[in-house]
Amino acid sequence: MTLGESSEDQIIERICSQLTQRSDILVGPGDDCAVVQLENGALQLQKTDCVVEGVHFYPEEMAERVGWKAMARVVSDIAAMGGTPSSMLVTLILRSDTKLAWLEALYQGIQNCANTFDFSIVGGETSSAPKDSANMLSIAGTGNVTKDNLILRSTANQGDTIFVTGRLGGSLTGKHLDFTPRVKESQWLANHCKPSAMMDLSDGLAKDLPRLAKLSNLGFLLDPQTLPISPNCTVEQALGDGEDYELLFTLPTQQVEYLLSNWPGDLTPLTQIGILEQRSETNTALDGGWDHFY
Amino acid sequence: MTLGESSEDQIIERICSQLTQRSDILVGPGDDCAVVQLENGALQLQKTDCVVEGVHFYPEEMAERVGWKAMARVVSDIAAMGGTPSSMLVTLILRSDTKLAWLEALYQGIQNCANTFDFSIVGGETSSAPKDSANMLSIAGTGNVTKDNLILRSTANQGDTIFVTGRLGGSLTGKHLDFTPRVKESQWLANHCKPSAMMDLSDGLAKDLPRLAKLSNLGFLLDPQTLPISPNCTVEQALGDGEDYELLFTLPTQQVEYLLSNWPGDLTPLTQIGILEQRSETNTALDGGWDHFY
Repeated sequence: MTLGESSEDQIIERICSQLTQRSDILVGPGDDCAVVQLENGALQLQKTDCVVEGVHFYPEEMAERVGWKAMARVVSDIAAMGGTPSSMLVTLILRSDTKLAWLEALYQGIQNCANTFDFSIVGGETSSAPKDSANMLSIAGTGNVTKDNLILRSTANQGDTIFVTGRLGGSLTGKHLDFTPRVKESQWLANHCKPSAMMDLSDGLAKDLPRLAKLSNLGFLLDPQTLPISPNCTVEQALGDGEDYELLFTLPTQQVEYLLSNWPGDLTPLTQIGILEQRSETNTALDGGWDHFY
Repeated sequence: MTLGESSEDQIIERICSQLTQRSDILVGPGDDCAVVQLENGALQLQKTDCVVEGVHFYPEEMAERVGWKAMARVVSDIAAMGGTPSSMLVTLILRSDTKLAWLEALYQGIQNCANTFDFSIVGGETSSAPKDSANMLSIAGTGNVTKDNLILRSTANQGDTIFVTGRLGGSLTGKHLDFTPRVKESQWLANHCKPSAMMDLSDGLAKDLPRLAKLSNLGFLLDPQTLPISPNCTVEQALGDGEDYELLFTLPTQQVEYLLSNWPGDLTPLTQIGILEQRSETNTALDGGWDHFY
């Protein structure tokens, strides 16, 4: 059997179940980032990610935007745990016909993201790619988070309200390259109204919400009327396009009023889109069709 | 101008000179690992690396050996700074025709290395690669090191003796896939007889020794008679094959006798191969011909 004939989630689940972890690893594979307990008890977030030519960006795309995207994806994952980015490592695997000007523009985008979110590029590796290969970037990053601010995917409770930031769908028209990771929103939430669970939306709500619910052994009820859909998009696009890089989070019902009354006006708007409920056969999947669950 | 028409060292130097670093980054790009000062003052080593099909391994190679190599390269870099590996992240970029059995064997090699050197695989990312692309692994790792044990590339002194561990050359006959990173040797050195500078040999002595010397603004004198050459290899191979993954280090002359008398018999043998001297036009390069410098 090949990877193309398998489910990515199943493959990862199977492999990860065989990995052994030292006791300083509080959260291993399966959340937005790993959580490592350092010797003094402080927590560190660790994350790796990649963008691949022909998969995550077109060959003709401006390199500066590609560099921003590669970094911002990792920043978004760190934000999704309640953390802030600290340091990043950049691996580039590039064909020898890649133009130096392209590489310099790529690093401009990388540095722009580092300046915007106040982290350092601490190292990197450059390798040649064979002639017919796609160019690829792999980014590894660390982030800081306090014990109080740490938010996992797997700690939601039945009855919690489901929220998203921003608008969903249509990412391919441009947002997938120049999105703003929701660090400010995540920091406000972690400090003022801590979600019971959170993740960032990278594969689309139809894939990501079932994942979040499943990790708490819950199902969900989604209200399609309330979905914050991007201009000129359909509900299907909001559910399935992916690469929204918005926060998906859950909150105990009794905190909802406080959140909505106090959410700062200069942050990305929030939308209440449903609730988590007891897991059953009818409320655990969203295979491209949200209306199955209503 | 393309990457193929440029020097890798020059490209990296130029790009890195434009990166801005936060004050918690003690060592940025240019050494085997970055050194980050954590909030409690402790140091963390951070490193990223990659192995690419057709560049670092053949398509028909056993996946378990490829997995071992990918991890062991990062372990070797951590050892080269006087540290021990702590956690690793694995990014895989694989074509959809990659066999599941290959992926599982790859992870077996990854886990073997983690077991051998007592670190955790804390997370990963899997992306599809386009149809004609090479399969690629990118590994990012953290390591622990104390301030006392930290060894940089750039802190050698004139007159220091140059050593290597093990034997050089002929790596492609197999060692490049199943080498043992010199963690034990590095730990003994850091604790008992700390080198003035150290790095691991990945590109071959002819490239790596000039790099080490240059970072301390020094030249070198190499004694080709003393080079520890692998069986069935020439001096040229020992200098140029690369992927030795041995330690190259320098030591003040007055410590040499202590080192040679006390080096434990169960560690990889050491060889004294030359000295560092004042930089001049004749002792700063080793372009595939060591005899230029004698």
